[in-house]
Amino acid sequence: MRQVIATLALLLGAAYASAQDPLPSWNDGPAKQAIVSFVEKVTKDGSPDFVPPPERIATFDNDGTLWCEQPMYFQLFFALDRVKTLAPQHPEWKTKEPFASLLKGDVKGALAGGEHAILEIIVATHAGMTTAEFEKIVADWIATAKHPKFKRPYTECIYQPMVELLAYLRANGFKTFIVSGGGIEFMRPWTEKVYGVPPEQVVGSSIKTKYEMRGGKPVLMRLPEMNFIDDKAGKPVGINEHIGRRPIAAFGNSDGDQQMLEYTQGGDGARLMMLVHHDDAAREFAYGAESKIGTFSDALMAEAKKSGWTVISMKDDWKKIFAFEN
Amino acid sequence: MRQVIATLALLLGAAYASAQDPLPSWNDGPAKQAIVSFVEKVTKDGSPDFVPPPERIATFDNDGTLWCEQPMYFQLFFALDRVKTLAPQHPEWKTKEPFASLLKGDVKGALAGGEHAILEIIVATHAGMTTAEFEKIVADWIATAKHPKFKRPYTECIYQPMVELLAYLRANGFKTFIVSGGGIEFMRPWTEKVYGVPPEQVVGSSIKTKYEMRGGKPVLMRLPEMNFIDDKAGKPVGINEHIGRRPIAAFGNSDGDQQMLEYTQGGDGARLMMLVHHDDAAREFAYGAESKIGTFSDALMAEAKKSGWTVISMKDDWKKIFAFEN
Repeated sequence: MRQVIATLALLLGAAYASAQDPLPSWNDGPAKQAIVSFVEKVTKDGSPDFVPPPERIATFDNDGTLWCEQPMYFQLFFALDRVKTLAPQHPEWKTKEPFASLLKGDVKGALAGGEHAILEIIVATHAGMTTAEFEKIVADWIATAKHPKFKRPYTECIYQPMVELLAYLRANGFKTFIVSGGGIEFMRPWTEKVYGVPPEQVVGSSIKTKYEMRGGKPVLMRLPEMNFIDDKAGKPVGINEHIGRRPIAAFGNSDGDQQMLEYTQGGDGARLMMLVHHDDAAREFAYGAESKIGTFSDALMAEAKKSGWTVISMKDDWKKIFAFEN
Repeated sequence: MRQVIATLALLLGAAYASAQDPLPSWNDGPAKQAIVSFVEKVTKDGSPDFVPPPERIATFDNDGTLWCEQPMYFQLFFALDRVKTLAPQHPEWKTKEPFASLLKGDVKGALAGGEHAILEIIVATHAGMTTAEFEKIVADWIATAKHPKFKRPYTECIYQPMVELLAYLRANGFKTFIVSGGGIEFMRPWTEKVYGVPPEQVVGSSIKTKYEMRGGKPVLMRLPEMNFIDDKAGKPVGINEHIGRRPIAAFGNSDGDQQMLEYTQGGDGARLMMLVHHDDAAREFAYGAESKIGTFSDALMAEAKKSGWTVISMKDDWKKIFAFEN
């Protein structure tokens, strides 16, 4: 009888623990363990690693860390769709690069112009309207456009384990921020609904804006000029400018995130640095050192090993990648 | 007997209401009434003016709105003290303007050089160190320096009615932000303790920073170059960059705040715009159209009347200005 009770207690205990698991899409393994042990350490009153709630700042890259970035950055799909939409108003684009190639469906040819071509596309599709108008354009696009591989809205191509991680951190008194190379105004219209991250906690690249009166109404016009590139060494700069505190946890997936992780680690006390590694061609994509989008170089892998950053294997550490999976 | 009970009930009710008054330092009058009626309107479920909590954004200027700005901006006192502290390392300052005048105590003479002189002082006192070093310099100064008139720490020269207003708004689901022409990194070390506004909710002017490794440690160096001026038409730009939503309430005190109030009013639904007017020479300072610091021009007063912005008379609307008053 005693054994029956002990077995029952164990079973009930396991069921209870599983119902309570805040990270159900994570396999038990070193990555999940690193997260849970870090959170327990910094939230336990009296622990030498205790961090007061206001200082529990966690920063997340977006492309490739919270949602997919293949076959190319989603913001680039947005820009291409905008070029098509705007083409009738721009007959000159038929013969003008990078637009001519784009309109023929030749993305590679269009991007052959490098930085300059990308800037031309951004200026043509992201500037020349008010911030409110741009917000509506993004909201309309994100509500209707679909990912070419998954045939679902881009906002469903988000990583369920990371959504759970965001919620788990917030439930433990963390403030969660996005710190992305993507456009700040491209992300803000949907991050609150999709990730629970409000606009004021989104840091990203931006173009300049100008305050003016238009028809008696005060508006901000989006200008054809870059303001800030929130990538690589720009990430710690953006974090300081917007947040004003050094994060204690940072999550990325590519060479563009190295400085954010270094900066996070550079503070005192317990720190958590993690990199998502895309090694699951079956369920998502497999890419790394050779990819131009979301490059995870051998140097970054070496740095992670040297510095004790946890590399998350999507294949091994994630039970489920997308909420829409069976 | 019935009358006795009724009287008792009335007395108890009044005592209860007074104990509950969230704005005890405000006299009953149009300003207090405007605040309370606005907050009740936007927080009442089912009201046509109801605003969901995430959109309850309130922005506050700092100098002259939350704390004093006379006889000159406190950040300028900080800069002058820094010049004195650093002078032994800069023998050349003895003959170089604006430093020579400053070191002789001739502030007016030093500032005669205009914008250029001010920039020279800022560069000499605010740049060339890491962000962490600068934070410590500010924290040390603010803990010891005293206001020349009130003989108290600058962080006690804050307006008690505005501190109550910040708390009242937060208790009603608002997120409160500072949007100041002052330096963002000059404010952040103390705004959380003094106003309950955390670093990530402070918007201000800034100089450029650069991420680098110093002795193997990742730091942000403060560069001798302006990054952003958060004043006049810069305030809506700064609000959009940092917050990404249009405020529904904004509080200022000078010409530098006009665009922030316009921008706030330009959104749909209920809005609250207020300007603190310094008309109390006995308890604080009296200044306005003629003052170079915190100019409240006749044009701004006319704009306030035309647009229905509430002008707060410190003399008439505030029962108490400072917590340290008897």
